[in-house]
Amino acid sequence: MRISQFFVSTLKEAPAEAELISHQLMLRAGFIRRLGSGLYSWMPMGLRVLRKVEAVVREEMDRSGGIEVLMPAVVPAELWMETGRWDKFGPQMLKIKDRHDRDFCFGPTHEEVITDIARREIRSYRQLPINFYQIQTKFRDEIRPRFGVMRAREFVMKDAYSFHTDLASLEKTYALMRDTYARIFTRLGLQFRAVAADTGAIGGSGSHEFHVLADSGEDAIAYCPQSDYAANIELAEALAPATPRAAASAAMAHVSTPRTTSCADVAALLKAPVTQVLKSLLVMSADNKPFLLLLRGDHELNEVKAGKWVEGLRFASDAEINTLFGAVKGYIGPMGAKERGITVIADRSAAAMANFICGANQAEQHLTHVNFARDLPEPEQVADLRNVVLGDTSPDGKGALELCRGIEVGHVFQLRTQYSEAMGLTYLDEAGQANPVEMGCYGIGVSRIVAAAIEQNHDARGICFPKTMAPFQASLIAIGLGKSTAVKEAAEALYTSMSAAGLDVLFDDRDDRVGVMLADQELMGIPVRVVVGDRGLKEGLVEVQGRRMEAAEKIPAADVLKRVQTLLEQAP
Amino acid sequence: MRISQFFVSTLKEAPAEAELISHQLMLRAGFIRRLGSGLYSWMPMGLRVLRKVEAVVREEMDRSGGIEVLMPAVVPAELWMETGRWDKFGPQMLKIKDRHDRDFCFGPTHEEVITDIARREIRSYRQLPINFYQIQTKFRDEIRPRFGVMRAREFVMKDAYSFHTDLASLEKTYALMRDTYARIFTRLGLQFRAVAADTGAIGGSGSHEFHVLADSGEDAIAYCPQSDYAANIELAEALAPATPRAAASAAMAHVSTPRTTSCADVAALLKAPVTQVLKSLLVMSADNKPFLLLLRGDHELNEVKAGKWVEGLRFASDAEINTLFGAVKGYIGPMGAKERGITVIADRSAAAMANFICGANQAEQHLTHVNFARDLPEPEQVADLRNVVLGDTSPDGKGALELCRGIEVGHVFQLRTQYSEAMGLTYLDEAGQANPVEMGCYGIGVSRIVAAAIEQNHDARGICFPKTMAPFQASLIAIGLGKSTAVKEAAEALYTSMSAAGLDVLFDDRDDRVGVMLADQELMGIPVRVVVGDRGLKEGLVEVQGRRMEAAEKIPAADVLKRVQTLLEQAP
Repeated sequence: MRISQFFVSTLKEAPAEAELISHQLMLRAGFIRRLGSGLYSWMPMGLRVLRKVEAVVREEMDRSGGIEVLMPAVVPAELWMETGRWDKFGPQMLKIKDRHDRDFCFGPTHEEVITDIARREIRSYRQLPINFYQIQTKFRDEIRPRFGVMRAREFVMKDAYSFHTDLASLEKTYALMRDTYARIFTRLGLQFRAVAADTGAIGGSGSHEFHVLADSGEDAIAYCPQSDYAANIELAEALAPATPRAAASAAMAHVSTPRTTSCADVAALLKAPVTQVLKSLLVMSADNKPFLLLLRGDHELNEVKAGKWVEGLRFASDAEINTLFGAVKGYIGPMGAKERGITVIADRSAAAMANFICGANQAEQHLTHVNFARDLPEPEQVADLRNVVLGDTSPDGKGALELCRGIEVGHVFQLRTQYSEAMGLTYLDEAGQANPVEMGCYGIGVSRIVAAAIEQNHDARGICFPKTMAPFQASLIAIGLGKSTAVKEAAEALYTSMSAAGLDVLFDDRDDRVGVMLADQELMGIPVRVVVGDRGLKEGLVEVQGRRMEAAEKIPAADVLKRVQTLLEQAP
Repeated sequence: MRISQFFVSTLKEAPAEAELISHQLMLRAGFIRRLGSGLYSWMPMGLRVLRKVEAVVREEMDRSGGIEVLMPAVVPAELWMETGRWDKFGPQMLKIKDRHDRDFCFGPTHEEVITDIARREIRSYRQLPINFYQIQTKFRDEIRPRFGVMRAREFVMKDAYSFHTDLASLEKTYALMRDTYARIFTRLGLQFRAVAADTGAIGGSGSHEFHVLADSGEDAIAYCPQSDYAANIELAEALAPATPRAAASAAMAHVSTPRTTSCADVAALLKAPVTQVLKSLLVMSADNKPFLLLLRGDHELNEVKAGKWVEGLRFASDAEINTLFGAVKGYIGPMGAKERGITVIADRSAAAMANFICGANQAEQHLTHVNFARDLPEPEQVADLRNVVLGDTSPDGKGALELCRGIEVGHVFQLRTQYSEAMGLTYLDEAGQANPVEMGCYGIGVSRIVAAAIEQNHDARGICFPKTMAPFQASLIAIGLGKSTAVKEAAEALYTSMSAAGLDVLFDDRDDRVGVMLADQELMGIPVRVVVGDRGLKEGLVEVQGRRMEAAEKIPAADVLKRVQTLLEQAP
């Protein structure tokens, strides 16, 4: 493609509202333009990237037996009412009334629609399993759209839905989809991780998220480098310490700790490690029963985990603390909890502590050398209450956990029968009995992948696209095209030979300043560039440079095609 | 593709609500399924057809220098307010409010959005001309959606918008787009016609519609077989008769014509040709001035044309006729019109009549042998007021007009500067002066093409797709696959050889009844089919049949591939 026949519109500076690097670079490279809050037009150069991602997703879905369909974007409310999600989905759903005042929405996801199709089409076990997918524009009315296409309101999604006679069949397709997703992200040249995930609002049992790893990612992930284990940090299990509780070493004692309420401050004041301090958190259940949660001083409460023990968990108010303990906020501890009518639940690590420091339930006082069993009763419950931390033992026992951040780009669910039961989707088995259909669903944020890839692959000069999703494989820059016949002839010859070899080349024939042309190519992230100029040509040389290379190579013009092909092969 | 790994769902009978043959066949062949009024899901087999149409449209747009973009479906109201179309577009526009109660619409067309993009991107004449296009889901809230995807509310459209420094450049791209559209419909194997059209609500000057010809088409088209001339019947010009007005032959006379008010009845009663009878129609302008429109008895008034002479034209009420003529409805004529304060406008053919019959302005009386100039004044105005009829001289003078019906699948417009002026889109010329940008727009109803193609290409057994848009090029049917090893081996060998040759083959490996498999293939419109059965194989023969052929050919298995390729080459 010649730039003169295409549309390139780069900016020197990103608009101020763009916070995230991918958003800045996509605007600067002219990939997207903002139409409104959370609404972006894909400009020619950006659309090439989006289409390349789409093509990989489609090819791999087809290869895994997915069958493509296309459902309407505008969906009648009646279907959503059948599953109760018309009310439950919340304000992210863009509701619409047509000219006859009937209710519709701009589909944020399509479980209801595909289940409606399936209940009209599927009769017999002979038709199962089947896996339908589509690549489609979706809309979710985010309360605060931001970060460009990373969290846009209108976006392109691949959503697949599978149907099965039984759980074994669902699990087989679920595993196949996990493998397919891994192949998709590998082909796209991305560093990613599949992590165990919470099933959230979509419901169902098994669920995994696929994250593109990037420091700017919104999600924290715990993983074990020695094994496949990875989980969203909210979900990763914190095991009990491997070593048993130490023996009591000294008698319990009061110490004065004025104006020292945080565990770290207490540890500093008493010159003890923070791991020796017990953190006591008073929380209330939905029916206003008090619970004291005990954690090691360096650990953070995981409210999702604690919520499994304290229904409707909320932190106690100052008034509630006063009522139960007196005015000793910041100095509460587990001594005498039972007498106060408080249930004590200790995190596994807290339960393993000995000779610990805790609040004395007296203003400006802590206790030291406290021991369960000796100085106070064992906790009534020991549970996993905390977020995992760097170095925790992996739940699979195969090593120590590491932490990283990721951007969710895919999500697979075992929905089981919740939609088929709500909407009456059954199949007849071999005995002629009707049974609810087992379902799975599998999403990929196609447009978000473009932003996530840039978060992971950029440098000070711009984007460094993996070759599969770059808008072009190579760029050809001609210096002084209008002035030098030699440059013109050499550039045209290279363009012809590279194109004939099947390379997707962007020929910068703008005859602009060198700096502008080089900067544009680096900004747009094209993996290899070839620069033709009079100075080099005098010696028969042309410059070739990979996007991630420090400097250009000067090589004979005749060797350019081969070198470009080699650099592309080697590129991620 | 093996059917066992795909999804085929055909119906014996079309649902009763499907009136149009294309709608019936698309439902029966399992191409689409209804989700709601004017909302259809594209099922796997139908989506293959849609994607093939899309691919041809995209390839030809790219070949003509179109640059693809993708704009949001959800568009802020503010842009539509700038052009005044937020109010003017009418209830076809699906209006939406987001969670913050801001106004949006589901874009029915994208002139405003692309003009907004252009005014941010285009600065200089050096960037022009440029032609952006997208292939996108649109929504128009039709008051009565019907005919399946022919007139659906949600549909797939290709919309292109070009930008120019001057009219000459716009006219060049407009001509290029007309050629491109002709190439698209030719490649799709469709009988079509480009017709001059009214510019309607989109506005602007030049405009052509592209129609797929089909008896069921909603639009009537006049065309000249001897030339390129074609126009929507509302727009085709009716020329004045080539022969001059005849001389008066006899004196004007009164005749009694009781209960004879239509031109045809008068002609029959008086044993005269209907072409000898003058039709007089009393109409009123917006400011309630009366006009008498004169037509030849066999001609029909064209209200669009007459509206250019009578502003806000409406037919006179019985009361108005009574006031001006007395109670002589059905017997009015042009005699004494001037005295009654009525302006007389004659169609060109009416003005050329001599010795004609007309109403006598007396109950149950007509006049015969009436002549302009001799018996009454010449009409105050002679104009083109009527629809053309079969055999009229073509406006280009190159032959006689014929009439046909068509389905509009494309529309090209010269928008000129109406959008650029309303939205402040200008470019700087070589002198540094700002000028409004000239614009063109070019639409194709991608999903409608599928229905239109079926209207034009079907028979009693189903669809007869042109090869470019058929879901598969060939089908392979194996009779008794589960029972006969010979059939299984021969079918697998043929499937392998045809696939290896690059043919897109649907292998019916369902081992269903022969009748079902043959009927499905004919219904779905696959251009060539190959049938393998034990009976033929005993003689080494396989059946090959083109979709439009009366009977199958029995040929040696070794010749099948070549024969299929030949039949495909010959197929439309």
